[in-house]
Amino acid sequence: MSDAYNLILLRHGQSLWNQENLFTGWVDVRLSEQGAGEAKRAGELLAESGLLPDILHTSLLTRAIQTANIALEEADRLWIDVKRSWRLNERHYGALQGLDKAETLAKFGPEQFQLWRRSFDVPPPVLADDSQWSQAHDARYAALGDDLPRTECLSDVVDRMLPYWESDITPDLRAGKTVLVTAHGNSLRALVKHLDGISDADIAELNIPTGIPLVYRLGADMMPLGPGRYLDPEAAAAGAAAVAAQGNKK
Amino acid sequence: MSDAYNLILLRHGQSLWNQENLFTGWVDVRLSEQGAGEAKRAGELLAESGLLPDILHTSLLTRAIQTANIALEEADRLWIDVKRSWRLNERHYGALQGLDKAETLAKFGPEQFQLWRRSFDVPPPVLADDSQWSQAHDARYAALGDDLPRTECLSDVVDRMLPYWESDITPDLRAGKTVLVTAHGNSLRALVKHLDGISDADIAELNIPTGIPLVYRLGADMMPLGPGRYLDPEAAAAGAAAVAAQGNKK
Repeated sequence: MSDAYNLILLRHGQSLWNQENLFTGWVDVRLSEQGAGEAKRAGELLAESGLLPDILHTSLLTRAIQTANIALEEADRLWIDVKRSWRLNERHYGALQGLDKAETLAKFGPEQFQLWRRSFDVPPPVLADDSQWSQAHDARYAALGDDLPRTECLSDVVDRMLPYWESDITPDLRAGKTVLVTAHGNSLRALVKHLDGISDADIAELNIPTGIPLVYRLGADMMPLGPGRYLDPEAAAAGAAAVAAQGNKK
Repeated sequence: MSDAYNLILLRHGQSLWNQENLFTGWVDVRLSEQGAGEAKRAGELLAESGLLPDILHTSLLTRAIQTANIALEEADRLWIDVKRSWRLNERHYGALQGLDKAETLAKFGPEQFQLWRRSFDVPPPVLADDSQWSQAHDARYAALGDDLPRTECLSDVVDRMLPYWESDITPDLRAGKTVLVTAHGNSLRALVKHLDGISDADIAELNIPTGIPLVYRLGADMMPLGPGRYLDPEAAAAGAAAVAAQGNKK
């Protein structure tokens, strides 16, 4: 058993709806070709770093699972154990799911748009269960019952993600396993907020790039011994800037 | 909860070494392009049948995991739970691993060749730990210790596979889950031998085709209510004949 514990965070690559600039949330959209390429590159970075995961945690969304499968195939680690949970899902975007980001920005104005996108505690309007973009009738969430979100702000994501961090991810870390978490922009922001002790106000500025493994070394208290380290820092900086600029796309 | 339980068996598609006619066993060879196509077809068959798995059990070998990932992606079920075990691995082919099947046939003669390939209880010679085809130093089997096989006959496969059937697969079936087992020619022959009550002598004649889901309905005693049913019976018959003819290839 080592004195430090290895955690690798990986945000899924571009999805078909990222490409089309639509709000996605819990809608189960697949990776684009570019996204698959990002996942492959993530696997190469893992293999080159020699930091090989012993266990994978993913959300229940296809784009995160595809990202993990492609990256692990590239790193020759498809055989590791896998756990999945809805608690690692992307933020539920409520009634914005399926809407065009640029149109939403034009319709509601930059202030409201940024509030929905980046405020800590203001969720978008609730998504109706009879919407084509609702997950109310999706078999994979049947066990959730009333816990199924109809909209979420980042604060809600923190509240449903952290219990899984405690109950399922930290025990694997404590057992000495290198843990890979393959998830989403907002579920990973929620986790990084916790790990880096970022305030409710400052988290708005944090953008996590897609497809670049972010490595933390944790102490026995399951908190970082130092800052997280991207396996490709240059690409990570460019990627974070691209995420920040999202929504301003015409 | 239903009165019958659904079990789906799927043998991985063609691997790169199937294509080259080499004994594979525990050597971690990937799917060929043809094999990936077979896996995709398996996923289509699952989707068309409406028999959708709730949980996946795979071996620790990449070709079985790739097959499952491709089939589940096709059937839109990547999000189901996954369990893996070395107990579902292909038969360990001992010192034959890495050898050309046709050359082995020519060198040892048809009688010895068939004995190694199809007898119930005659294993090939042991594979040395310093062979390039040994798994003695493979991280994924580190926990096995002395249980790591150096060669196996089908009887050995039955002995290490059935405990997993009892301990891990039947509980999922009893919980009402449709279970997909994605594995190998010989680990699936071992399971079908148990399910269909095939004798040690008669199992030699059983050939399971690649890439075609084989569906069983089981009773409360976890034994079949009727014969297994291939989702594409015509392709299954042709595939089984092709497997039977293997090794006679020049």
